[in-house]
Amino acid sequence: MGTNRTWILASRPDGQVADAHFAYQERPAPRPSAGELLIRVLYVSLDPATRASLNASGHAPAQAIGAVIQGSAIGQVVESRAPAFTRGELVMGNFGWQDYVVASAVGSRRPTKLPTTHPPHWYLGVLGGTGLTAYFGMLDVGQPQAGETVVVSAAAGAIGSIAAQIAKLRGARVVGVAGGARKCGWLAAELGLHAAIDHRDPLLADRLREACPDGIHLYFDNVGGALLERAIDQLAVRGRIVLCGMMSTYDTAAPHAPRNLFQLIVRRARMEGFLLMDYSRRFGEAQRQLAAWLAQGTIRSKDDIQEGFENIPRTFLRLFTGANIGKQLLKIADPVELSSPTPAVTTATV
Amino acid sequence: MGTNRTWILASRPDGQVADAHFAYQERPAPRPSAGELLIRVLYVSLDPATRASLNASGHAPAQAIGAVIQGSAIGQVVESRAPAFTRGELVMGNFGWQDYVVASAVGSRRPTKLPTTHPPHWYLGVLGGTGLTAYFGMLDVGQPQAGETVVVSAAAGAIGSIAAQIAKLRGARVVGVAGGARKCGWLAAELGLHAAIDHRDPLLADRLREACPDGIHLYFDNVGGALLERAIDQLAVRGRIVLCGMMSTYDTAAPHAPRNLFQLIVRRARMEGFLLMDYSRRFGEAQRQLAAWLAQGTIRSKDDIQEGFENIPRTFLRLFTGANIGKQLLKIADPVELSSPTPAVTTATV
Repeated sequence: MGTNRTWILASRPDGQVADAHFAYQERPAPRPSAGELLIRVLYVSLDPATRASLNASGHAPAQAIGAVIQGSAIGQVVESRAPAFTRGELVMGNFGWQDYVVASAVGSRRPTKLPTTHPPHWYLGVLGGTGLTAYFGMLDVGQPQAGETVVVSAAAGAIGSIAAQIAKLRGARVVGVAGGARKCGWLAAELGLHAAIDHRDPLLADRLREACPDGIHLYFDNVGGALLERAIDQLAVRGRIVLCGMMSTYDTAAPHAPRNLFQLIVRRARMEGFLLMDYSRRFGEAQRQLAAWLAQGTIRSKDDIQEGFENIPRTFLRLFTGANIGKQLLKIADPVELSSPTPAVTTATV
Repeated sequence: MGTNRTWILASRPDGQVADAHFAYQERPAPRPSAGELLIRVLYVSLDPATRASLNASGHAPAQAIGAVIQGSAIGQVVESRAPAFTRGELVMGNFGWQDYVVASAVGSRRPTKLPTTHPPHWYLGVLGGTGLTAYFGMLDVGQPQAGETVVVSAAAGAIGSIAAQIAKLRGARVVGVAGGARKCGWLAAELGLHAAIDHRDPLLADRLREACPDGIHLYFDNVGGALLERAIDQLAVRGRIVLCGMMSTYDTAAPHAPRNLFQLIVRRARMEGFLLMDYSRRFGEAQRQLAAWLAQGTIRSKDDIQEGFENIPRTFLRLFTGANIGKQLLKIADPVELSSPTPAVTTATV
């Protein structure tokens, strides 16, 4: 039997998450039963929402102490005991932070086969949950109109960078807010946003006012907290706020609560939250549209791909230090040619 | 010349408003010029929004130190120097806390003539800003559906009591939140609400949960702060919040900021503010509908009418101690028969 390297939840963070909340553990590699697949995990997706699930504060149940950290990943079928899947196929699912996982070939949690038309890791980013969240949040909830001023927070992040580009495609003046000069430079130069503002700027409120002289018509928010408060202060009459995420509140024991909700009355403004899972019947439509925009070059995908199984927790922490531009991924291994029926789990590479 | 009794703003409250922020001042009664009216103020309306305008925190400009407190009132024309108005007519406008006011007979701020079909003070309450706010806020913004659970805060207040009755008319299960057993008893017995909850109950969250086993589909909020936070916790998936007012935040230097806005994402909920003035073209429609409901007895108007010019500030303070049930008014004087053209301002009653 091979070994399955895993990262488990050692303890729940009370405030900032750190390396110490995760523990490395080697377990026997699992074996598939009839109707199941053995999957080798190749890429793991690192997502802010995972932070919420380390405590019982998200919409998903809290992750269990001592259990392998859950999360989206791309893998390769190394052994199939179900006719619907073939050894060697690339699949996506909630495989977690581990080398191997056994999945049922049927049911709602069965792995999704990946098309070969795009780089597989795009299905964790621009063509996966990230891109789909940006697509539905911006177009269905936010509905930006040509000429409107749209502000996107965490605009250099995985969702924000796609959301900002979609708003731009709709003819909006898009202002991105991000942390630091490197990201702001990228937003202006690479994404061509109208303006990019550093949220650490002590004159943030002034910068927002200058960039949005007619107020903010649509605020697409990934961070919550103090920046949400500043955006509410600058909302135009009948302004809308799309609550996509609250990154700034996940990793602290004392998140900032906006004190100016009365301004939502003064400005007759609307604030609305959404979850991607409610749009599952339309994922195909969104993926086709995003793929078309990528092919045209009107939307760019940006990924930050770290490597090495041992680096998964510290790559996850990059989200909270703001190190990444675009989608944060970690590559454990490349797909391999698998022509023989020999289960890869027994090979020397494990 | 007669005397004009006035209440002026002596100083801005920094925290709770008190008697000391107002000063009594006698001024010479004003005289109308050509095209103007002299109005004797009969009833003044006491409104939570006035509290916001004592500081620069509302949507209206802050009231000026040393100026007569502004506010809606009913008055009687005692001298008309404009053909469109007749001595003796009852009118409504922003006349403020004083005995006499001179108003232009033309322009957007000209007084509104009152129909004689209803008690005049109803035009400050159920047929005035209060009832209209409840009407548009509940029906246009909130849109309660039959069978939904609707929670109304400050449900024994001027707007809340009308809003709750309108939601009930639409077939919703209506839960009222108010301060104290007297108000809760009134909500259950007189308005026939499904449940009435005392916001001072230490087990408020449990009481809300019991009254709303399927969650809150629509929260019509007049108070903001801690109760808004509790309501967000109990929102149903796709729940809506209508932000009508934030009474709990007006009269304190440290209003409570809801810390659980992330739940708006988890519950895919919408929170929306509105202002009555945006509906001005539909005031007639709303007044006709409200009058029809009053005539049918399907909606009841409740007014708390205090008396005596000297009691205006302390009657205003009743709003913040929660003393009033229904619309808070103060009667300065009854209308009088005015057949002679002699200006009433020179009579001995002043």
